[in-house]
Amino acid sequence: MDPQMPPAHPFDDDKLKEECGIFGCVGVADAANFVALGLHALQHRGQEAGGIVSHDPEQGFNSARRFGYVRDNFTSQSLMKTLPGELAIGHVRYSTAGSKGQTQIRDVQPFFGEFSMGGAAIAHNGNITNADALRRELIERGSIFQSSSDSECIIHLMARSLQRNIPSRMEDALRRVEGAFSVIAMTRTKLIGVRDPLGVRPLVLGKIGDGYALASETCALDIIGATFVREIEPGEMVVITAEKGVESSHPFRPQPSKFCIFEHVYFSRPDSIIGGRSVYETRRQIGVELAREAPVEADLVCPVPDSGTPAAIGFAHESGIPYGMGIVRNQYMGRTFIEPTEQIRNMGVRLKLNVNRALIEGKRVILVDDSVVRGTTSRKIKEMILDAGAAEVHFRIASPPTAWPCFYGVDTPQREKLLAATMSEDEMRDHLQVDSLRFISLDGLYRAVGEAEGRNAKCPQYCDACFSGEYPVTPADMIEKGFKMKTAAE
Amino acid sequence: MDPQMPPAHPFDDDKLKEECGIFGCVGVADAANFVALGLHALQHRGQEAGGIVSHDPEQGFNSARRFGYVRDNFTSQSLMKTLPGELAIGHVRYSTAGSKGQTQIRDVQPFFGEFSMGGAAIAHNGNITNADALRRELIERGSIFQSSSDSECIIHLMARSLQRNIPSRMEDALRRVEGAFSVIAMTRTKLIGVRDPLGVRPLVLGKIGDGYALASETCALDIIGATFVREIEPGEMVVITAEKGVESSHPFRPQPSKFCIFEHVYFSRPDSIIGGRSVYETRRQIGVELAREAPVEADLVCPVPDSGTPAAIGFAHESGIPYGMGIVRNQYMGRTFIEPTEQIRNMGVRLKLNVNRALIEGKRVILVDDSVVRGTTSRKIKEMILDAGAAEVHFRIASPPTAWPCFYGVDTPQREKLLAATMSEDEMRDHLQVDSLRFISLDGLYRAVGEAEGRNAKCPQYCDACFSGEYPVTPADMIEKGFKMKTAAE
Amino acid sequence: MDPQMPPAHPFDDDKLKEECGIFGCVGVADAANFVALGLHALQHRGQEAGGIVSHDPEQGFNSARRFGYVRDNFTSQSLMKTLPGELAIGHVRYSTAGSKGQTQIRDVQPFFGEFSMGGAAIAHNGNITNADALRRELIERGSIFQSSSDSECIIHLMARSLQRNIPSRMEDALRRVEGAFSVIAMTRTKLIGVRDPLGVRPLVLGKIGDGYALASETCALDIIGATFVREIEPGEMVVITAEKGVESSHPFRPQPSKFCIFEHVYFSRPDSIIGGRSVYETRRQIGVELAREAPVEADLVCPVPDSGTPAAIGFAHESGIPYGMGIVRNQYMGRTFIEPTEQIRNMGVRLKLNVNRALIEGKRVILVDDSVVRGTTSRKIKEMILDAGAAEVHFRIASPPTAWPCFYGVDTPQREKLLAATMSEDEMRDHLQVDSLRFISLDGLYRAVGEAEGRNAKCPQYCDACFSGEYPVTPADMIEKGFKMKTAAE
Amino acid sequence: MDPQMPPAHPFDDDKLKEECGIFGCVGVADAANFVALGLHALQHRGQEAGGIVSHDPEQGFNSARRFGYVRDNFTSQSLMKTLPGELAIGHVRYSTAGSKGQTQIRDVQPFFGEFSMGGAAIAHNGNITNADALRRELIERGSIFQSSSDSECIIHLMARSLQRNIPSRMEDALRRVEGAFSVIAMTRTKLIGVRDPLGVRPLVLGKIGDGYALASETCALDIIGATFVREIEPGEMVVITAEKGVESSHPFRPQPSKFCIFEHVYFSRPDSIIGGRSVYETRRQIGVELAREAPVEADLVCPVPDSGTPAAIGFAHESGIPYGMGIVRNQYMGRTFIEPTEQIRNMGVRLKLNVNRALIEGKRVILVDDSVVRGTTSRKIKEMILDAGAAEVHFRIASPPTAWPCFYGVDTPQREKLLAATMSEDEMRDHLQVDSLRFISLDGLYRAVGEAEGRNAKCPQYCDACFSGEYPVTPADMIEKGFKMKTAAE
Repeated sequence: MDPQMPPAHPFDDDKLKEECGIFGCVGVADAANFVALGLHALQHRGQEAGGIVSHDPEQGFNSARRFGYVRDNFTSQSLMKTLPGELAIGHVRYSTAGSKGQTQIRDVQPFFGEFSMGGAAIAHNGNITNADALRRELIERGSIFQSSSDSECIIHLMARSLQRNIPSRMEDALRRVEGAFSVIAMTRTKLIGVRDPLGVRPLVLGKIGDGYALASETCALDIIGATFVREIEPGEMVVITAEKGVESSHPFRPQPSKFCIFEHVYFSRPDSIIGGRSVYETRRQIGVELAREAPVEADLVCPVPDSGTPAAIGFAHESGIPYGMGIVRNQYMGRTFIEPTEQIRNMGVRLKLNVNRALIEGKRVILVDDSVVRGTTSRKIKEMILDAGAAEVHFRIASPPTAWPCFYGVDTPQREKLLAATMSEDEMRDHLQVDSLRFISLDGLYRAVGEAEGRNAKCPQYCDACFSGEYPVTPADMIEKGFKMKTAAE
Repeated sequence: MDPQMPPAHPFDDDKLKEECGIFGCVGVADAANFVALGLHALQHRGQEAGGIVSHDPEQGFNSARRFGYVRDNFTSQSLMKTLPGELAIGHVRYSTAGSKGQTQIRDVQPFFGEFSMGGAAIAHNGNITNADALRRELIERGSIFQSSSDSECIIHLMARSLQRNIPSRMEDALRRVEGAFSVIAMTRTKLIGVRDPLGVRPLVLGKIGDGYALASETCALDIIGATFVREIEPGEMVVITAEKGVESSHPFRPQPSKFCIFEHVYFSRPDSIIGGRSVYETRRQIGVELAREAPVEADLVCPVPDSGTPAAIGFAHESGIPYGMGIVRNQYMGRTFIEPTEQIRNMGVRLKLNVNRALIEGKRVILVDDSVVRGTTSRKIKEMILDAGAAEVHFRIASPPTAWPCFYGVDTPQREKLLAATMSEDEMRDHLQVDSLRFISLDGLYRAVGEAEGRNAKCPQYCDACFSGEYPVTPADMIEKGFKMKTAAE
Repeated sequence: MDPQMPPAHPFDDDKLKEECGIFGCVGVADAANFVALGLHALQHRGQEAGGIVSHDPEQGFNSARRFGYVRDNFTSQSLMKTLPGELAIGHVRYSTAGSKGQTQIRDVQPFFGEFSMGGAAIAHNGNITNADALRRELIERGSIFQSSSDSECIIHLMARSLQRNIPSRMEDALRRVEGAFSVIAMTRTKLIGVRDPLGVRPLVLGKIGDGYALASETCALDIIGATFVREIEPGEMVVITAEKGVESSHPFRPQPSKFCIFEHVYFSRPDSIIGGRSVYETRRQIGVELAREAPVEADLVCPVPDSGTPAAIGFAHESGIPYGMGIVRNQYMGRTFIEPTEQIRNMGVRLKLNVNRALIEGKRVILVDDSVVRGTTSRKIKEMILDAGAAEVHFRIASPPTAWPCFYGVDTPQREKLLAATMSEDEMRDHLQVDSLRFISLDGLYRAVGEAEGRNAKCPQYCDACFSGEYPVTPADMIEKGFKMKTAAE
Repeated sequence: MDPQMPPAHPFDDDKLKEECGIFGCVGVADAANFVALGLHALQHRGQEAGGIVSHDPEQGFNSARRFGYVRDNFTSQSLMKTLPGELAIGHVRYSTAGSKGQTQIRDVQPFFGEFSMGGAAIAHNGNITNADALRRELIERGSIFQSSSDSECIIHLMARSLQRNIPSRMEDALRRVEGAFSVIAMTRTKLIGVRDPLGVRPLVLGKIGDGYALASETCALDIIGATFVREIEPGEMVVITAEKGVESSHPFRPQPSKFCIFEHVYFSRPDSIIGGRSVYETRRQIGVELAREAPVEADLVCPVPDSGTPAAIGFAHESGIPYGMGIVRNQYMGRTFIEPTEQIRNMGVRLKLNVNRALIEGKRVILVDDSVVRGTTSRKIKEMILDAGAAEVHFRIASPPTAWPCFYGVDTPQREKLLAATMSEDEMRDHLQVDSLRFISLDGLYRAVGEAEGRNAKCPQYCDACFSGEYPVTPADMIEKGFKMKTAAE
């Protein structure tokens, strides 16, 4: 009866998690079907729930929100028939900032509001850092919130704007909002896309037939056969109709862009293109950099599947050490066991991964992983490798130490839980009891993403707050709740 | 209400499919939990349905059979509590020979029978080639069949045996049966394992604490932390109790063994060990042999994920051509879309795979796949690669042409549907419109699995009927239905 | 996946339908359990969906809304555990005025709003006749509506009130509202009950242990073992806390009361007490009056089950003609067949009712029914009785002709569909092809409910608009939509 | 996931329960739809589960078995489409003799067997008193039982018969069977009906269009619009085809008939006709007899709903004391609350029944009920009546004391649990603490069913073992399990 809550992955538990993927399109028949496909391609950005709103001149706005995977919900013909029209937007989510405890279906986006000039729906990827203050103010003035989501502020701000058309109301609303946001919205006739002035979260534009699509990543354009046109710029708003095409404006004060560098490292799909670069190729290049920065004598370069694979290929290629799949992933673990017995809960990582014993035995093994968050999984994998008879275990990590939480739309543990927040690289090595452990340097990472000179310390080219503790937008709500920013001494 | 039938994978549609995985254990607390884990590790051998029978001295025999994945069914605490005891067996299935149309829950194994000396349950991997004749005879004599499965013959033959104990009744029954079988059975106190005299299908023995486990593959021993002891021999029966351990006998007339060579090529998991060899390593070696037999100048060796990966690694290593993930798999496609809309159905392979355009563009690409069955998927993948701007496409296939159906427990299309049954290698190349297409030779495959001299044409070391048309057991039922064996001329 | 919509009863299709039942209690442990029981006793007032909101000092407000019967939803221990606290309110609904097409779960009450001084939830029985105008005004000012329900206006009006406490905000809101309303509301500490100045819909107060309950009918007090204290008066507001007990006020301008007379005829349960009178006894008395007003020679008085039973008993007693169950109801038709085949759909009334042929054959039968709406069921019942061999069929109806729709919280067909709107009593008799047809007179009905002098034509003691066309509150929204009030000529 | 088990009714808990209803028809399009309707009309004979088997020349045999009500399962168009053909049979069940603990779907009839001359399905109402011995023998000879039902013996005996056609095999089988049985069976072309030589359980024949129907009761003929032809005689077998119509034979040795008298008292629906008599009229007549045998001065005759109603009408008519509905039944209690909270569990009878306080207060009340089994409900109803202020409570029971369990297809408590097995009428009165308690005499009951001379003590005209302890068939299995027959002394 109650929506079944897909619990966190036992294995991916130890990863940072992107909180949302968004998609919209206009000017194509059965737009909601395309949205479903686009969201399916963006499922890695949010597995907990998804929603689609469509509009049809005769049927008006229609909406469906469901817990679970896109492929399990938004593919039934009976449901998709209830979402007619040539204009639709959708959202997949992991969890939002505000929700404590179990998510409710009312927290699932897109959010919809009926205004005097007609309805509008919005889908938001990112996080509003002054949402608590905005919510208090709106309630004081008589707004009734339906969800615990920070994103709902946007639609209430729009409802109260005195502007006479919805795009202008959206500008009004977003100027009050601080933090990171890529937003896709729709009215009865328009598809709207906006990125915050820093451009923290991605948003891309595609063309399909006579219509257009907006998506978090290019892989979602590929799946529907759309052509990638360009990225929406930081601070840009596009208003798209089937008739007039794309109209662009820049409603915010310009600022130096701060795209999330972790999108390159882990969040985005390897077949997406960001900033003109293949994510796969960037990750392979991280492996190359890592092999240069932290070489070690060994017999085998083995990826921690699946996210460590491109960097491992790069590491193997650069180092000349053979590449091999020493760890095999059970492909039937799309999500974890439902309501598992105690025994199964204790299995942990073995349900998802198995060691290829014959390949590992007696070898000096380099394990390449994308990141270390709490370190819990790294430890278990190390044990599996040693149990299988490895002679040595060397960890090479394709990102710098993750020492600070993200407040811009990524689910991170509290700072105290981050291994790198409390330990040096050597301490982590001892903690994990491995023969060596090395992270790529921040400069090495910047080189891998194409900044030949490395990181510009005065004005970093990316948001790298999770590594550096330098937050481009002050996390006001979190500071009110007690979060301590990096001090000059740190 | 009705069991939801997980439909075939749009992508894997063009693969041969193993029909069953089996697992059993004795002498461990909550044995059914171990069986669930073992079946989860064997899920690649059968995704349609699964069943577990357990026995507890106080609660007697209990059984649960479900459509869908192990992880979605046999993990709920409420269900697993209904399966108490230290002795349990289980089965996952793809589909059985006999069933026409929709599978019924009554077709799901294990099958159970109450005999005068107590109950017994059996789980069967393989196919009985004289099942039709046996069924007719048993019905004539008053047996009532509950399923359309060939495997049910075994339990009826056991019920009618005049032997006074169940293992002897099982010997009686299996002597009447022709074809391929690995069987795990249980009585109130005994776990029993048997392989047919040819040893076509695998069966391995493991030790866990004071107890024992039997499984289709060693990867299922790994997941529960059991130690791999040895393979059950062709024609061997083991009767295992917690008290007396393993008692072995050889009830059948000895014959030269004919293990299924396709288990090495595709069916088994890469982290399993068969005949003392790592499946992963064997597949990598197939890639090495293929690079020697069919070299080609190119810029990139790209696996068709996921099954082509080990051979691609071997091919790249042997050829010196860089290895790269030109095709990316959507990890949320564990099984296909339920009840998809027309639009989604037409997406076909794009729902599962996307091309890494930036990596492919302008390159001469070698695609390494494990097999070609109908050729439908190969064609779509070739198109995706060309659309992405590849300069040349060369297919290298890690198995010989699949020209004959399997009658020993593998789901194969009718002979007419097999591309290699009607076309030569060159014709297939033209049909697929690729720059080159080469399969590994039968001798090359034998070398890769460790037969240095290649295939012994007089008495092949493996069952390779799907490639050679030489069937080690006459498929009597199929011949009655009109199947034509290979003639001297072919 | 989608909530299953319990469709209308094939038989009760031809009845007017009460739209809501409400219940709340305070000062008792596990208040939500009592609310579930109370709603179960009020299920006849709304079968489509139900909701409960509870408050606990530690857990805050919690809410659950479900389609279907109370007994099928609000009885599972896992759900009820999510509704802790000593204060709770609930609602069962048939359908609301605003909803076009399929009801959404967001239309299911209680509605909840978070205000700056804390949250409040409301459950509304009745109908707001100026809801359209209020909604337009609220949207214009920036409120976002979540449902299509007229009742949602109340919570938005409360959110925008400038009063500093919730009961005062509720007064503010309800003074803007026209129409019929009995409302139960709750804050973190208070249970609130209000009836509109005319007192159209019922609301009663009960005492249970140290706590209190509010309910639509006394039968809901009986089920939880509460003592009936008194009816809430028309225009009265009660604010109840466990500590201070019941505080009463009269915030509206006094008006002559206009309680819905149809509650006596059909809506309320026969074991409820209204205005100090047993509903069963009132209905029996209607039968007595009817026997006096419209006697006929016959052999059997037969109720149309179940609602015609008390009047039939009264008719038989007064007339001296034997009473007998000539029509038997299938007790397994709690709600109609789900997704019926065409054949079943055509069965109509036979699925619910069967004639007791042996009792009917050759007899002159008086059928006593509570009302005639469209006349469709009456016709089918007459045919069943004649098919069974009745010599004569005489209809006696325990209410006057229903000639006008209700706009105060009752689901009535459009005026054109009401048989009595277009035909005289004689025309209806001919239309139904029965030997005689007589309705009780309006005066006779008033006598039966205890008004010895009959109806006061100048200022009727009840709302009887459905019979008389005299609407005590102008139905503003409906007039805007084209409804024509009774003219002087009619 | 697991079939939801409709638990016993809190109220009806204290009734004997008929265990099965059966229905079949031939020669009508979409026969399964008619079977669904027939089973719906017979739902009072078994609420736990139902099944239908149909046959179509092209599609062969098809079957569906479901837990829950007919109306919730066998009405969905998608399911009914899977049951094509002009020949179908079905079964509703309460529970079978053999099943211990939770019923499995495999225990749900009809049972199906594939024989060498084609398949057959059977549906059985009754109980086989030598089933244990038969089962042991069949297992010894190699039959595999699928269910724990006694009825499965019949199909195994048929499978082993040496006869060349199915009706003859059925005769063979039923000659081995002891106890009570009405059986409906089907082959590919024939509908077959049989009653045991004593005719304990009912079975009637109807005609619909060019086809025929067999049913447990005539009310199931009414619902499909079939004409009642006649009862199948005790010991008669009918073989019906669309072409040849009804062929009758009497394969068993003739015996005096012993129809179950409790079918008149409680099991059958009041609108059914048994032995040429209306069940409703018989029950009304029981009330008349009871008023003569056990008159008492009182103010109100009140039925215990719904089963006591006809006898109460008869009692009131004969005694001249007014009839009134002092107890009102909640019509939404079709079955009890699912998974109820503790609080709800303790509500007991109040969930189903409420007292009409205004009618009862100060009155001397005669409560008419159909039977007293354990006495638990009678006690609760008495308390409700007294709480409502009744001056006196007199119970009048429309059956003799139920002192013996039934072994012929009725679910009865063990003898020790039957109130009348351990107490005299006076002791029961004191136990229930009522002013008077009287049961109808056995002779009075026989008079009411039409035996003017009362019961023939030498050779009773009915099976009345539950009252008299005189069992017409020795309950062999139960005696083996320790049941003690009535001794000469008793």
